[in-house]
Amino acid sequence: MRFFSDNAAAAHPAVLDAIAASNRLDTAYDGDEWSARLDSAFSDLFETRVRALWVTTGTAANCLALAALCPPHGGIICHRDAHIENDEAGAPGFYTHGAKLILVDGPGAKVTPGSASAAIARIRKDVHQVQPRALSITNATEYGLAFSADEVAALGELARSHALGFHVDGARFANAVATLGCAPADLTWRSGVDALSFGFVKNGGLNAEALILFKTELADEVLVRRKRAGHLLSKGRMLAAQILAMLEGDLWLANARSANAAAQSLAQADPGRLVYPVEANEVFLKVTADEAADLRSQGFDFYDWGHGQIRLVTSWDQHGEAVAKLAAAIAAL
Amino acid sequence: MRFFSDNAAAAHPAVLDAIAASNRLDTAYDGDEWSARLDSAFSDLFETRVRALWVTTGTAANCLALAALCPPHGGIICHRDAHIENDEAGAPGFYTHGAKLILVDGPGAKVTPGSASAAIARIRKDVHQVQPRALSITNATEYGLAFSADEVAALGELARSHALGFHVDGARFANAVATLGCAPADLTWRSGVDALSFGFVKNGGLNAEALILFKTELADEVLVRRKRAGHLLSKGRMLAAQILAMLEGDLWLANARSANAAAQSLAQADPGRLVYPVEANEVFLKVTADEAADLRSQGFDFYDWGHGQIRLVTSWDQHGEAVAKLAAAIAAL
Amino acid sequence: MRFFSDNAAAAHPAVLDAIAASNRLDTAYDGDEWSARLDSAFSDLFETRVRALWVTTGTAANCLALAALCPPHGGIICHRDAHIENDEAGAPGFYTHGAKLILVDGPGAKVTPGSASAAIARIRKDVHQVQPRALSITNATEYGLAFSADEVAALGELARSHALGFHVDGARFANAVATLGCAPADLTWRSGVDALSFGFVKNGGLNAEALILFKTELADEVLVRRKRAGHLLSKGRMLAAQILAMLEGDLWLANARSANAAAQSLAQADPGRLVYPVEANEVFLKVTADEAADLRSQGFDFYDWGHGQIRLVTSWDQHGEAVAKLAAAIAAL
Amino acid sequence: MRFFSDNAAAAHPAVLDAIAASNRLDTAYDGDEWSARLDSAFSDLFETRVRALWVTTGTAANCLALAALCPPHGGIICHRDAHIENDEAGAPGFYTHGAKLILVDGPGAKVTPGSASAAIARIRKDVHQVQPRALSITNATEYGLAFSADEVAALGELARSHALGFHVDGARFANAVATLGCAPADLTWRSGVDALSFGFVKNGGLNAEALILFKTELADEVLVRRKRAGHLLSKGRMLAAQILAMLEGDLWLANARSANAAAQSLAQADPGRLVYPVEANEVFLKVTADEAADLRSQGFDFYDWGHGQIRLVTSWDQHGEAVAKLAAAIAAL
Repeated sequence: MRFFSDNAAAAHPAVLDAIAASNRLDTAYDGDEWSARLDSAFSDLFETRVRALWVTTGTAANCLALAALCPPHGGIICHRDAHIENDEAGAPGFYTHGAKLILVDGPGAKVTPGSASAAIARIRKDVHQVQPRALSITNATEYGLAFSADEVAALGELARSHALGFHVDGARFANAVATLGCAPADLTWRSGVDALSFGFVKNGGLNAEALILFKTELADEVLVRRKRAGHLLSKGRMLAAQILAMLEGDLWLANARSANAAAQSLAQADPGRLVYPVEANEVFLKVTADEAADLRSQGFDFYDWGHGQIRLVTSWDQHGEAVAKLAAAIAAL
Repeated sequence: MRFFSDNAAAAHPAVLDAIAASNRLDTAYDGDEWSARLDSAFSDLFETRVRALWVTTGTAANCLALAALCPPHGGIICHRDAHIENDEAGAPGFYTHGAKLILVDGPGAKVTPGSASAAIARIRKDVHQVQPRALSITNATEYGLAFSADEVAALGELARSHALGFHVDGARFANAVATLGCAPADLTWRSGVDALSFGFVKNGGLNAEALILFKTELADEVLVRRKRAGHLLSKGRMLAAQILAMLEGDLWLANARSANAAAQSLAQADPGRLVYPVEANEVFLKVTADEAADLRSQGFDFYDWGHGQIRLVTSWDQHGEAVAKLAAAIAAL
Repeated sequence: MRFFSDNAAAAHPAVLDAIAASNRLDTAYDGDEWSARLDSAFSDLFETRVRALWVTTGTAANCLALAALCPPHGGIICHRDAHIENDEAGAPGFYTHGAKLILVDGPGAKVTPGSASAAIARIRKDVHQVQPRALSITNATEYGLAFSADEVAALGELARSHALGFHVDGARFANAVATLGCAPADLTWRSGVDALSFGFVKNGGLNAEALILFKTELADEVLVRRKRAGHLLSKGRMLAAQILAMLEGDLWLANARSANAAAQSLAQADPGRLVYPVEANEVFLKVTADEAADLRSQGFDFYDWGHGQIRLVTSWDQHGEAVAKLAAAIAAL
Repeated sequence: MRFFSDNAAAAHPAVLDAIAASNRLDTAYDGDEWSARLDSAFSDLFETRVRALWVTTGTAANCLALAALCPPHGGIICHRDAHIENDEAGAPGFYTHGAKLILVDGPGAKVTPGSASAAIARIRKDVHQVQPRALSITNATEYGLAFSADEVAALGELARSHALGFHVDGARFANAVATLGCAPADLTWRSGVDALSFGFVKNGGLNAEALILFKTELADEVLVRRKRAGHLLSKGRMLAAQILAMLEGDLWLANARSANAAAQSLAQADPGRLVYPVEANEVFLKVTADEAADLRSQGFDFYDWGHGQIRLVTSWDQHGEAVAKLAAAIAAL
């Protein structure tokens, strides 16, 4: 019973069906009928005209967006616990050709207007220091917290006033939308977001993520950068088809709700142990080493998170028995 | 009836079956049981210990290899018609951080010891000119010609004597092996090759290629570079499983033979029209504009290749009627 | 008696005097009084408002300009014999983060509208091939030929019509102006040039070159890139002072005329031996190996240029006896 | 009376004399007689065989060294207040092609074995996090503290045990040596240092710094990288001559002692105000805004350093009256 990570889960059957259905000769790269439908499908979802590209990883989506928003000599404000800082092997440095991640602190991996402003204020406005050119947040964050539409909008306003491009790493964007119950548009372009890495792989997808460009004039350059990074797959139709399957009937939202609900079950097992409020599909608990060992001895797998904490991540397909068992085990600690 | 490109074809059913079979929870990235089997499977195939990594595109495979073999300030000798020069949007420049492609000419996109030596001789041995550090060939070439084991070995000797890393773009390596009937080892490490981009997607795969490192000490660095380029997919098991399915029972070889046979059918329809000998699954024919139009009017799609030439590419699943029809149409021109 | 290269000559005494005169405490970097005068001095010379920066090498000037005019994923059209292609160790690839030099051929290292157009026409307009974004020429060329104002304007028109940034490597710009007798403006912004590397070091300077931006909106970015490349010297005033000394009383032009006149003396010694017309301070002669040895035995040093050719370069301070002796020796061959 | 920075001072007359003396025709780049003497001169000074290159800025020296010691996908441990992090506009990211600066904290900009070890310990040993490959310290630090030979050796041991390249930014290396009274060898290769940026410009030089490679096998690559970065000046002899003039009769040491002595005069004016011990030529004082204004009203210029602090930097040529006046003014606050 693995609660390591949502990206280890199986793909949803509808995704495999979509791959099979698109497995016939068509134009290579993104000239096929499925890829051609992405712009329209996401424009509908976001209630505005967007450009949408498939890529195979969140790292690629994030870094293509950052490279389009920040020049090599610029800086990107993000949280010290952001995935782009901690878990992408320096990919932002590779894609942007050396741009600097300007780190801010704060609980729950949340950038705030205050922390971002303070970071900007510390930078001398001269050629000796790297000037900020972009802002990147993760929603839901690496600690499972959701930025509300108002919070995003406040950061969007900050970005606008400092001429920063604004990117959202949405590896768990679906989980944030599911929790907040708001329109995807509210968490993105209506709040000043220029580009969104819209994650599907952690949410039942197989190997297709979407990069959504609200600032549509970036698309031509990003398409070139995608190819130049070796991310233009020749049978791209099987990626597009996966994404379309996830959008069909809002499967993405149903899956996220399912994972979120499982996380709530775990959270409610012993709320006193929670390190953060549970607003997505991640649960951080305070447990002793003995308690962690106890849970593992019952067959539950998860990451230690240092400082007497463990991380539990629920997946779209984790409901029912395994979750109930883990909740009971937590309650019984 | 499309003869545009083999990379537009459908994937082989066994590949889809393998994806479905690996669609269950396992460790993310390349920690799963399928990925763990790649080194061994390819070591068997190549009769020596190799390291093997999945990636999703030939461009990624090529450029990860080149970046490992050539420093940013070095040069890579390749043919002017090489895919890395013409069709990868400058990806080698991106991955290597600006290394230079040193181009040689010659018929059929074949680098020869003579052309490579001449290119090396033209370079002054000083800090003002970019010094060659790697050699890259494509086998089968972009014009469908196969380098024999002896030809590769001669280039391997040249590479060794000039301390050049030696890379083979094997987008159609299977087609070369099928034609030559030799051991994969003969076309690679036994002939001095350090790294091979082993293509599967043009040969019935879906979205998994293999990067084979004969110089196994490069693997640790290449693994990091793969992650840094956003090419470490979280559900990598579905890539590994595809590749294993292609290796199973030598499906890769059967598919290549099938495509090659179809190409031979087209070649033999009117040998006088051939621009190059047909040694893989590509057929370049001399036809007039009217003749090309005539073929298209009969429902055949293909690329014009300039200078009164057309390119026909056959796929693993193109046999029987469509090929016979096209052969007849060519013969009837 | 060395005719190897103008960049081996001594600096003009006025340049050393200027360094000495600026050798007192002032604001570091480019905040000093001399650096502050560059924009104005060059705006006067070019009869339009320009931004002017000192750098220490032509390579830095060229590559900072190219990086500002061409994105990492773009291409720069230049001649196969251009300094940026042949003699800068791949610096354009470093500064631009991997942009591609798209090479054209033609006698005397001259790009023409025809050769550039043909190069552009060969490129498919898709994401698989690197698209041209800039054009770079050298005036005077690496073979000592001057582009006339009309020739530059024709290339400027081509650049405009294809949305290419237009850069001139003016390592010997002074020599071109001296020969043509036209206004510097005619060879640059009036003909569509965006940026000029204005060379002084080959023309009596010590270690200061100027990068002139006619497209002044590039300046802020170029200033940052200069710093980021380690080219913002703390005692920049000694660079600015050198350049101002070269502009004072048109010393740059007098020096260039002197070097050009010396080259004419050599050219007229035996016009039948000239490989190219002599329009600057470089003389390429057809001589046999025995003749070259004969000249060397008389104490003249110079480069062999392959194919039975030698290169003689005259400097600002080479007039009088040594030149007359060499001219006589050539005539006597 | 400026106490802004030592890099705003005039150059020592011996340096200008050396430039004048080398101002005659010689081989370009570094083929001249002065450049040829650098290896030997520094090998003598450091009592071991070293390779020594001139460059024009400390940023170039630092970043060439870092690029040779750390691959693009590696990390460089340094202090949060290091010049390479704060004042080089991201040049390390440019030169290394995106390597990450891994920052440590601690008073006085001093990296310690403890802080470096802790930083290393926080990094997971997997491909998702950037692994440390180099260590860089500044001696004397940005706050004017000197690392003793023992302190350097302890860091050298740490570097060795983690296979980290070890670089010292010695913009004020002379000041450190002058304070410590030890052999330059003790602060460098005897303590495990691989490369040193040996600063001269802040210490009476004009525009030549030296990059010293104790790991001499790096030299060939660094020479290429220098050229590729546009830092191979054609009249390099005027840089080499400057450096030789600074080494002649240990002028570098005399100048540093002079600047250090001036700093001591200021430090002793009111030791209770010192933020850090004064071990080089920088003095950080606690003063109120009113007191700072008072000093400025008396004609003294300097930087505010935040938090009620000011920074005073003394130069090789600041002794006698101005320093005495400032000391008196501080004492009188």
